[in-house]
Amino acid sequence: MPRLQLFFIYSLDAKSVGVKLGILGLGTVGTGTVQLLQDTAGRHPLLKEIEIYRVGVRSLSKPRQVELSTGVVTTDLEAIVNDPEIDIIVEVMGGLEPARTLILTAIKNGKHVVTANKAAISRFGAEIFTAANQAGVYVMLEAAVGGGIPVIQPLKQSLSVNRIHGITGIVNGTTNYILTRMQTEGSDFNDVLADAQRLGYAEADPTADIDGLDAADKIAILASLGFDGRINLQDVYCEGIRQVSKTDISYAAKLGFVIKLLAIAKHQTSDHSQLSVRVHPTLVPQTHPLASINGVYNAILVEGEPIGQVMFFGPGAGAGATASAVCSDILNLVATLKTNTPKSNPLLACRHENYLQITPISELVTRFYARFLTKDQPSVIGKLGTCFGKYGVSLESVVQTGFQAQLAEIVVVTHDVREGDFRQALAEIETLEAIDSIPSILRVI
Amino acid sequence: MPRLQLFFIYSLDAKSVGVKLGILGLGTVGTGTVQLLQDTAGRHPLLKEIEIYRVGVRSLSKPRQVELSTGVVTTDLEAIVNDPEIDIIVEVMGGLEPARTLILTAIKNGKHVVTANKAAISRFGAEIFTAANQAGVYVMLEAAVGGGIPVIQPLKQSLSVNRIHGITGIVNGTTNYILTRMQTEGSDFNDVLADAQRLGYAEADPTADIDGLDAADKIAILASLGFDGRINLQDVYCEGIRQVSKTDISYAAKLGFVIKLLAIAKHQTSDHSQLSVRVHPTLVPQTHPLASINGVYNAILVEGEPIGQVMFFGPGAGAGATASAVCSDILNLVATLKTNTPKSNPLLACRHENYLQITPISELVTRFYARFLTKDQPSVIGKLGTCFGKYGVSLESVVQTGFQAQLAEIVVVTHDVREGDFRQALAEIETLEAIDSIPSILRVI
Ligand SMILES: NC(=O)c1ccc[n+]([C@@H]2O[C@H](COP(=O)([O-])OP(=O)(O)OC[C@H]3O[C@@H](n4cnc5c(N)ncnc54)[C@H](OP(=O)(O)O)[C@@H]3O)[C@@H](O)[C@H]2O)c1
Ligand SMILES: NC(=O)c1ccc[n+]([C@@H]2O[C@H](COP(=O)([O-])OP(=O)(O)OC[C@H]3O[C@@H](n4cnc5c(N)ncnc54)[C@H](OP(=O)(O)O)[C@@H]3O)[C@@H](O)[C@H]2O)c1
Repeated sequence: MPRLQLFFIYSLDAKSVGVKLGILGLGTVGTGTVQLLQDTAGRHPLLKEIEIYRVGVRSLSKPRQVELSTGVVTTDLEAIVNDPEIDIIVEVMGGLEPARTLILTAIKNGKHVVTANKAAISRFGAEIFTAANQAGVYVMLEAAVGGGIPVIQPLKQSLSVNRIHGITGIVNGTTNYILTRMQTEGSDFNDVLADAQRLGYAEADPTADIDGLDAADKIAILASLGFDGRINLQDVYCEGIRQVSKTDISYAAKLGFVIKLLAIAKHQTSDHSQLSVRVHPTLVPQTHPLASINGVYNAILVEGEPIGQVMFFGPGAGAGATASAVCSDILNLVATLKTNTPKSNPLLACRHENYLQITPISELVTRFYARFLTKDQPSVIGKLGTCFGKYGVSLESVVQTGFQAQLAEIVVVTHDVREGDFRQALAEIETLEAIDSIPSILRVI
Repeated sequence: MPRLQLFFIYSLDAKSVGVKLGILGLGTVGTGTVQLLQDTAGRHPLLKEIEIYRVGVRSLSKPRQVELSTGVVTTDLEAIVNDPEIDIIVEVMGGLEPARTLILTAIKNGKHVVTANKAAISRFGAEIFTAANQAGVYVMLEAAVGGGIPVIQPLKQSLSVNRIHGITGIVNGTTNYILTRMQTEGSDFNDVLADAQRLGYAEADPTADIDGLDAADKIAILASLGFDGRINLQDVYCEGIRQVSKTDISYAAKLGFVIKLLAIAKHQTSDHSQLSVRVHPTLVPQTHPLASINGVYNAILVEGEPIGQVMFFGPGAGAGATASAVCSDILNLVATLKTNTPKSNPLLACRHENYLQITPISELVTRFYARFLTKDQPSVIGKLGTCFGKYGVSLESVVQTGFQAQLAEIVVVTHDVREGDFRQALAEIETLEAIDSIPSILRVI
């Protein structure tokens, strides 16, 4: 390949040409970002070349934790994305609209975009990346998954020399905080949730976190990068933690597991023809690297060939950590702008245009944990076994545990089984006279 | 800033201009690298554009695990680094010379360099990076630390928006394997070492690993990136694991610690005026993120502002994992070559030229664990306390434990103390009549 001599000239003096940012949003993440950029001593020197040119908010009268010159803060977000002076738009306002439209307008205007908005990217990623490729700009999203943890960039760059087999993450801090407290305190879900809300670890409307929707957005993004294709968010199977009980947490512990809300994207077969993408509470062996990730921390485990297992761990949210990720994207763009080339860097651009085929959950092959309340203990295990056997479900362990209101409790862990077969067996088991109810069904990793 | 429109054109067909590699070495890492590059399906498509043009070895007659066309393998490594056809030199031969000279020649010839050679980089980094900056080429070293774990690139890019406070790593798989087995089996160092050598986890001459020299090379490299300056390897304090006994491992466990060989680079004071860089066996609280890193795995914990703590975990060595890191560097260079710009990317280049001032170990402020064998138990604790008090050492815990050959054993853990003061206290304690010996002195994190 013919080579060009590179010139290593940094112009880091105050008078050098600055890169102008338009920041949409000055809430938790926006404020953290502005604070970081206003206090650059001891950080990468390139940050000094950035000018916070405009910041868009909803209310001009709200008190702010950062000082910005007059004229910088505005409620006219349209004007920001249309301002020809601005090089990079930093979208940290959240929500679907007007975020989507503003991002698309910025792209159309030839601006690079940094966003922390997993909800918008997981839904409108295809539209946004197509527009970006057409306009010849980059859309960066390190902050959208795993807060401060550098995981998007490694997946796009370093790890992409591997054949990725699986990505498994604890990517929602709120649910991990709740599950950790349920586990260490033996408390009930509702009590811990209420307390988490009081302490600010869970939102007043906790649906997006608790029901796994936030984690689904994130695993859709990770899967897209790891498996090189677009993901239809509707294809991501999603189950939250509302039904996880302290009873199951304590049985799981006795069996050597902890219960975590995992977001999983994994090839089922070695020919890579079946990709499953899903979020659900999961029994994780206590020795598994993800088992010891507690509290609001996040961790993402990537498995590939030839690398084996690598895991990234860190704070999954918070002003500072998320600002670190936002600013790392800004830094990357500033560095790219410095190279002043009309050719795109294929490691920064989004390169896939096909949609990935996702295997339906009924085709998943996994182990299960199930807890039964039964009336008629002596013969019921035999009956369970017969039903399971009929559908090809083989049992790894069966534990008869305590009694609850005169009902015996039986906990089983299966070997690998096709989910559809397991569900059929359960449907038949539910009709058995001896079965009172099946309070819990959880997958095992 | 004036903007250029980027063009997103990939030419991924077989006829596209290839990037030519000259690989120095076809041992463990070289073979893994060739295998990865010869089997690109399912990996980043840019890898298809790479041609393995020359591979340098010592012996042409040695059987190889990979097939290469006639003329590719050669013993003339000089010719490779001087070949004008070659774009990138991949140095995976190891050792100091001729590796250093070959790297410098390649740089002088305008070739980019990828190296896995922590020994050469930690010693000759200043010379190599100066030459690279002058020649306008990049020197990439992801594989030099943490095997497959992407840690160099995150430190140079994402994490560099933070003020780094500390980097703490388990960066030597051999010693972590030995300590893990000593811990789980209660075995002696020498027995586990012999077994590790038999199983191929430790080399016939284990000095570089066991005495912490390999870890010192690696923390010098990490510290240089994290704290933005060059490190004089002689300034890195280094203590290996030969003196770690199963007795101390079991006392540590009772006190809630595990013993790990840590490589640490940390600002001692909040004004960042004192940087300590060191390798030593360390008592790590069982709840610390590094405590559960076992076997040959590596992990690197980075602490900074505003990110907090992030940790990278993965295989620290091995053909596949290391090849993943080597190929990620190659990919990065190929992507950069594609952008065809004469301007350097400031996130890939090495940007520091100053040497960092390292605080001598005597100025370290840390907690200590010490084990004493004493003759005269009833009064000896008082005497220890008096001596410690005289030098400002305050004790967090004192445990009188068992007897060994009629000697009583006393284990103390101190509060934070200046190492110099602690050593003076120990020197005085050693002269006490009641003290038989001080078999172990370990730092506590
Ligand atoms: N918080 C985290 O830890 C975290 C972590 C990772 C990713 N994220 C993502 O980062 C994004 C921002 O989160 P956040 O927690 O910083 O949100 P936030 O605290 O609610 O802040 C949102 C900001 O955007 C402004 N805004 C919202 N809608 C607007 C509109 N229609 N017009 C003008 N301004 C508008 C608000 O203006 P006012 O101030 O005037 O109300 C506010 O400044 C979200 O996509 C979130 O998912 C957050
Ligand atoms: N092994 C790992 O897991 C690992 C992990 C991280 C980093 N690294 C680093 O990677 C580098 C390579 O390690 P390795 O384990 O692959 O070493 P290795 O198995 O000993 O292979 C060294 C290769 O270099 C060739 N070579 C050495 N000296 C030479 C000379 N003077 N002239 C010509 N050829 C020469 C050898 O040729 P012959 O084959 O003809 O003898 C051999 O192919 C080292 O810097 C090491 O620290 C290794």
